[in-house]
Amino acid sequence: MEKTKVAIIGCGTIAKSAHIPAYLNNPNAEIKYFCDYYKENAERFVKEYGCGIAVQDYRDILDDPEIEAVSVCTPNNAHAIVSIDFLRAGKNVLCEKPAARTYAEALEMQRVQHEMGKVLNIGVVNRFNKGVNIIKSLIESGELGELYHVYASFRAHRSIPGLGGAFTTKAIAGGGVMIDWGVHFLDVVMYCSGDPTPKTVTAQTYSKLGRDMKNYTYMNMWAGPPKYEGTYDVDDFVTAVIRTEGPSITMNGAWAQNIGEEEMYIDFLGDKAGIRLQYGGDFKMYSSKNGALLETSPKFNAGDHFQNEIDAFLECIHTGEKLPSHIDTVIVTAKMIQAIYDSSEQQKEIIFD
Amino acid sequence: MEKTKVAIIGCGTIAKSAHIPAYLNNPNAEIKYFCDYYKENAERFVKEYGCGIAVQDYRDILDDPEIEAVSVCTPNNAHAIVSIDFLRAGKNVLCEKPAARTYAEALEMQRVQHEMGKVLNIGVVNRFNKGVNIIKSLIESGELGELYHVYASFRAHRSIPGLGGAFTTKAIAGGGVMIDWGVHFLDVVMYCSGDPTPKTVTAQTYSKLGRDMKNYTYMNMWAGPPKYEGTYDVDDFVTAVIRTEGPSITMNGAWAQNIGEEEMYIDFLGDKAGIRLQYGGDFKMYSSKNGALLETSPKFNAGDHFQNEIDAFLECIHTGEKLPSHIDTVIVTAKMIQAIYDSSEQQKEIIFD
Amino acid sequence: MEKTKVAIIGCGTIAKSAHIPAYLNNPNAEIKYFCDYYKENAERFVKEYGCGIAVQDYRDILDDPEIEAVSVCTPNNAHAIVSIDFLRAGKNVLCEKPAARTYAEALEMQRVQHEMGKVLNIGVVNRFNKGVNIIKSLIESGELGELYHVYASFRAHRSIPGLGGAFTTKAIAGGGVMIDWGVHFLDVVMYCSGDPTPKTVTAQTYSKLGRDMKNYTYMNMWAGPPKYEGTYDVDDFVTAVIRTEGPSITMNGAWAQNIGEEEMYIDFLGDKAGIRLQYGGDFKMYSSKNGALLETSPKFNAGDHFQNEIDAFLECIHTGEKLPSHIDTVIVTAKMIQAIYDSSEQQKEIIFD
Amino acid sequence: MEKTKVAIIGCGTIAKSAHIPAYLNNPNAEIKYFCDYYKENAERFVKEYGCGIAVQDYRDILDDPEIEAVSVCTPNNAHAIVSIDFLRAGKNVLCEKPAARTYAEALEMQRVQHEMGKVLNIGVVNRFNKGVNIIKSLIESGELGELYHVYASFRAHRSIPGLGGAFTTKAIAGGGVMIDWGVHFLDVVMYCSGDPTPKTVTAQTYSKLGRDMKNYTYMNMWAGPPKYEGTYDVDDFVTAVIRTEGPSITMNGAWAQNIGEEEMYIDFLGDKAGIRLQYGGDFKMYSSKNGALLETSPKFNAGDHFQNEIDAFLECIHTGEKLPSHIDTVIVTAKMIQAIYDSSEQQKEIIFD
Repeated sequence: MEKTKVAIIGCGTIAKSAHIPAYLNNPNAEIKYFCDYYKENAERFVKEYGCGIAVQDYRDILDDPEIEAVSVCTPNNAHAIVSIDFLRAGKNVLCEKPAARTYAEALEMQRVQHEMGKVLNIGVVNRFNKGVNIIKSLIESGELGELYHVYASFRAHRSIPGLGGAFTTKAIAGGGVMIDWGVHFLDVVMYCSGDPTPKTVTAQTYSKLGRDMKNYTYMNMWAGPPKYEGTYDVDDFVTAVIRTEGPSITMNGAWAQNIGEEEMYIDFLGDKAGIRLQYGGDFKMYSSKNGALLETSPKFNAGDHFQNEIDAFLECIHTGEKLPSHIDTVIVTAKMIQAIYDSSEQQKEIIFD
Repeated sequence: MEKTKVAIIGCGTIAKSAHIPAYLNNPNAEIKYFCDYYKENAERFVKEYGCGIAVQDYRDILDDPEIEAVSVCTPNNAHAIVSIDFLRAGKNVLCEKPAARTYAEALEMQRVQHEMGKVLNIGVVNRFNKGVNIIKSLIESGELGELYHVYASFRAHRSIPGLGGAFTTKAIAGGGVMIDWGVHFLDVVMYCSGDPTPKTVTAQTYSKLGRDMKNYTYMNMWAGPPKYEGTYDVDDFVTAVIRTEGPSITMNGAWAQNIGEEEMYIDFLGDKAGIRLQYGGDFKMYSSKNGALLETSPKFNAGDHFQNEIDAFLECIHTGEKLPSHIDTVIVTAKMIQAIYDSSEQQKEIIFD
Repeated sequence: MEKTKVAIIGCGTIAKSAHIPAYLNNPNAEIKYFCDYYKENAERFVKEYGCGIAVQDYRDILDDPEIEAVSVCTPNNAHAIVSIDFLRAGKNVLCEKPAARTYAEALEMQRVQHEMGKVLNIGVVNRFNKGVNIIKSLIESGELGELYHVYASFRAHRSIPGLGGAFTTKAIAGGGVMIDWGVHFLDVVMYCSGDPTPKTVTAQTYSKLGRDMKNYTYMNMWAGPPKYEGTYDVDDFVTAVIRTEGPSITMNGAWAQNIGEEEMYIDFLGDKAGIRLQYGGDFKMYSSKNGALLETSPKFNAGDHFQNEIDAFLECIHTGEKLPSHIDTVIVTAKMIQAIYDSSEQQKEIIFD
Repeated sequence: MEKTKVAIIGCGTIAKSAHIPAYLNNPNAEIKYFCDYYKENAERFVKEYGCGIAVQDYRDILDDPEIEAVSVCTPNNAHAIVSIDFLRAGKNVLCEKPAARTYAEALEMQRVQHEMGKVLNIGVVNRFNKGVNIIKSLIESGELGELYHVYASFRAHRSIPGLGGAFTTKAIAGGGVMIDWGVHFLDVVMYCSGDPTPKTVTAQTYSKLGRDMKNYTYMNMWAGPPKYEGTYDVDDFVTAVIRTEGPSITMNGAWAQNIGEEEMYIDFLGDKAGIRLQYGGDFKMYSSKNGALLETSPKFNAGDHFQNEIDAFLECIHTGEKLPSHIDTVIVTAKMIQAIYDSSEQQKEIIFD
C-alpha cells in the first residue's frame, strides 16, 4: 500500500504535541507539507522533523493531487474556511476541536462535507480514549441502570491559556473556557450517554478574572507568556443546565476562579451505579450489592488517544467507516455550545425544536 | 422581668436537639407546654426536663393567656396550620424550616402574620451562625469584589433521612432533599448575597435511590430506622440554575447518589476574591495581592447558632426588631423552591415577573 | 546591543552556584575572565563552562578596557580591596555580602564609589526575592498597620560552615554567624521595614561550640570538610536588640547551639496584621476581620533571585538606576553589624548620633 | 501540733485555683478568714468550702492573735500595703507574684520584713516545680558546661486576660504581659541560673493589640468577659536583653500578637548541652557524645507545685528556713522588671551599679 500523503495546516502546540508524532508513528502516512501563516514556524518543523515542505499559504497546496489527508491545527477562526477549502479540493480532513467558532460555521462545514462526500472528522479525541470507551460500554450494557444526570466540573484556580492572545480573543477563538475546555467535557458526556438529543439549555457565562490582565496572578501559563497589549473578551466561567432526551447535564467550568481547588471530573449518576471520571485519567465506579456499598477502581492500559485518533482517521479514508468523531455527530455539540452562549446573552432558556 | 412562657409544638428530634436546650439555657424563658400528637412523646419530655405540661392537641393551649412564644417543630405539613392558629391566637411564632410545603402555604402564613402583627420567624438558623455572618460582611464590605456566581453543593453518598416516613412522603414533607437540605443551602446563599431578587429558575429533580426501599443500601440513617411499609415519593437529587439581580446560582444536591463523595459546601465567586464555606464549619478565602495567590483560613468562636436564634426570637418579641429570619425575608426562598419543583415538572424555565 | 564583558573574581561556591549560571543565562552578558588566587580553581571553571580565560591575579585584568562588570566572590577580607581596585579602574562592581569585614572598610568602599561614580552593589540578594518584595509592599500599603517590632531568628543546631577555614577565621571573615547569616536576616528586616534609621544597639556574641574543634559534632557541613589545624575565633551565637526610627528589632542567631531545633524565620509584628516569613521560603500572614482570626498563605512564583540580582546589575550599568542593593543603602547594615560586635565587646549599648 | 490558722486575703481566681485547695489539703492548716473587698465573694467561699469567716476589710483581722499565716491574693496594687500591714501585725505572709507593681513598693515590703523578722515569701511558684528544680540541679552539676545564654519566649496569639479590668489597668496591675507572665519566666531563668546579679537591661514594651478593645478578636479569655468600658493601658508585647554576671538573657513576650503561634518556652544554652523547657510542662536536653548528637527527654512525677509552695511556707514559719521564694531573693526580679519598663520609657539601656 502506498503511504498516505498528509498536510499539516497550522504549526502550533497541538500540531507538535499530538498530530505530527502520531502521523510519524503511523507506517502508512507521510507528512508532505507543513503550513503556517508565519512561515518560520513551518520551516522550523521541516528542520526539526527532517521531512516535508514548508508552505505559508495553504491555498498553494489545495491542488496537489498527492495530498489525501489534511490536519487542520489552526486557531479556531480558520477551522471552517480551511476545512471547507480542502473538502472542496477533494481532500479528507481532520479538523481540531472545536469544529468552529459558531454553530453557523459548523453547519456550513457539515453542508460541504455532505456535498463533497469526503471525510470530515473533528478532533474530539476523548472518543478514542480507552477509559472513556470503557465508561461508554458500562453505561450501554446497563451497569449504571438508568443514567439520569451527569455533572461536569472543569474548574481550575489559574489556568487561562495565552492571556491576551488567540485563546482569549473572541473574534479568533469564538469563546473562552466553554469552547476551549467545555467542548471536550460536553463531548465526553454526550459520547458516553449515547449522544442523546438535547432539548433545552440554560446557561450563564462570565468574563471576569482575565479582564484586568496586568493584575491577573498565576503560577504558570499554557501557551504563554501573556500579551498584555492583546485582547481579553471571552468567558472564563460558565455554568449550565441542559435537558436532553437522556440524562440532564449540569456544568461548571472555570479557566480561572478565586477558589483554590482544581476540580476536573465528570460524574455519571445512574440509579444502579455511578461513575466519577477524573478528566484525562482514571475513574471510579460506585454501586451496591447485597447490602454493601462498593467502590470499584478499574485499571487499564490507556494507550495514546491521539495516536488512536490519527490511525482511525487514516484508516477510515480507505474503509469509508463513519467514525464517532464525524461532523454529523459532533455538530450537536456545536449546537449546544452556541445555545450556551445565546442563553447567557439573552438571559433565558434556549429551547430546541 | 417576668419570664416568657413558651410552648413547644412537636416533640421530635429538632425540638430535643435544638429548641429545648436553648430555651432552658435562656434565663428569661420558661417552657410551659410540650405538645405532640403522640402524647407519650410529650410526656417523655416533661419527665426528662422536669418542667412543663404534656399536651396532645395544640388547640387546647391556644387560649392560654400566659403563653407568649411558640416553637413549631412538627413535620412540614403542620407548619402552616399550626403557625397560623397561634398567630391568630395572638402568639409569637418561631416555625422550623422550611416555612411550609408549598409557596402557597407560606404566602398564607405571611398574610396572617401581616394581619395579626405578631412575630413569625422561620428556623433559617444559619442566619445566626457566626461564620455565615462573617462571610456576609466580607461580601458586603467589598472584599470579594463583584460576586458574580455562587455554587452550592449538598451531595451525600447515602443520607436519606427516615426512609418511608414523614421525610420521604411528599404529602407530609412537601419534597425531599431540595426542601429539607436545599432550603438551608439556598438560604445561606441568599443571606450572604444580600437577599437578591430572583429572576429565573431552571431545575430538574429526581426520585431514584430510595424508590426501591428494600434495596437502598446505607451505613446509618438520621431519624431512622426505615419504615419499609411507608412512602417514598420525594426528590433525592436536584440540580438547578437560578438567575438573580445579584449573582447567578447553581446547585447540585443529593440525599443519596452513586458517587461515594460527600461534598457539602458553598462557593462564592467574586472577581477579587472567593470563599469556599464547608457547610456547618470553617471557610477559606482565596484572593491575590502583589503577584501572590493568597489562601486565608479564619478562626473564630462559632458559638451556638440555635442558642443565638432562640435568644434573638425571645428578645425581638419585646423589642419589635425585625430579624433576618422574618417570614417577609424568607418567603423569597419558598418562592424559589416552588419554582424549582415547578420547573422540573414542567420541564422548562420559570420566569418571575 | 553588544554583550557586557564580565569578570568573576573568586571561583568558590557562591560564584559557581549563583553568579556564573545567572550570567550565562543572561543573553546580554559574556564571561571573559575567571580569576582565583588558586589558579587551578579558575582553570577548572574555564573547562567546565567552555568560556573565559583563567587568571590568578585580579590586577592583571584591571586595565582590560573590554571589561565592564565584575562580580567579587572572594572571601570577605578581599571584598574591600578588590572592589575598590576595580572601581578605580572604572569598572562596575557587584560585591558579595557582607560588604566588608568592618564598617570602616565598607565606608572606604562607599567613598571610592562616590568618587568614581561607577556602580557598587552588594549581594543582598533577598532584595530581589519575590516573597520578600511581596512582604515589603504589604507593609508599605498598610496591611500590617503600624509595624512596631520585628523578631529575626536564625538558629540552627549544627551548621558551622567550613570549620577552621576562612568562614571561622576572624581576620578573613570579619565575624561568624552574625556577619555571615545575620547580614541577610538584618537586611531583609531593614528592606521590608523601609530601611529605617537605627538609633541604638545592644548585643552579645559568643564563640562557644566550635572552639573545641575536634569535639564539634555535626551531621554535615557546608564548605566542609573541617580543617582541624585551622582557626576558630568567630561568633557562633548572637543576640541583639536594636531600636530604630521604625520598629524595634530583636535577633537570636546560632550557627550552632545545643538546642535541636532549626528556627529560621522573621516575624513582622504590626498592630493590624503580622507576617512570619520562613527564610528562603513561604510566609504566612495573620490578621483579624469581623470577629475572625485569619491565617493567610500566599502562593507565588518565586523565580530565581540570583538571576534577578544579576539581570538588574547588568541593566543598571546602562540605565544608571540606583538599585536597593546599592552601597549607599547597604552601608547602614554594615554600621549596625559593627555596632553589634562593638556592643558585645564593650558590654554596653551603642548609641548612634 | 496545733493547726496554723490562715487568712486568705482576696477571693479571686488564684485563691480558688491554687491557695485554698493547698491549705485544705495540708493537715496542719486551717482557714479562719476569707476576706474580699466585695464581701459576697468572701461569703461565697465560706459557703463553698464550709469553713472560715467572711470579712470585707482585712484590717479587721490584723489584731486576731490566732492568725499566723496570710495569703495575699489581691490585685497587684494591694500587694504591698496588705503585706506590710500584716507583717507589722506580726503575721507571716505569702504574697502572690509579682511582689508589687513597682520596685519601690517591693523594696518597702522588704524593708518591713527585715524590721519585723516575720516571713515574707512571694508566689514564685515555679521554684517549687519538680521539672524546674531538675533543670536547676543539672545546671549546677555542670551538665550544660558553661551556661552562656538563656532565651525566654512567652508569646501567645490571643491571650489578654480580663480585657478592660484589673489586669489591663496600669494603676492596678503595674503593667501587662511583662509583670503578669514575664515575672514567672524571668524568675525561672534566674532561679535555674543561680540567681546571678544583673548588670544591664535594654528593653522595649508596646501596648498595641488591646488598645482598640472593641476590635480585639479572641477565641476565649481568662478572667473574662471583657469590660469594654474599662481601661487598657498596659504592655501586651515586650522584648529585652539583659546582661548578668552569669548568662545573658533575651526575652520576647506577647499576651497578644498577630502571629498565630503559641511559643512558651525557655532555652538554656550551655557549651556542653542545652535545655528547652516547655513552660509548665516537660523539657528536653540536647548534648553530644562520641560523635553523636543526643536528645534526652526526662520523665518525672511533676507533683503539684502550688501544694509544695504552701506546704513549704507553713513549715518555714516554724523551722525558720529561708526559702528560695523569700523577698530577699525575689527582690532582684522586681528590680529587673522595673528596669525593663524604665528602659523602654527612656529608650536607653539601664545600667546597675
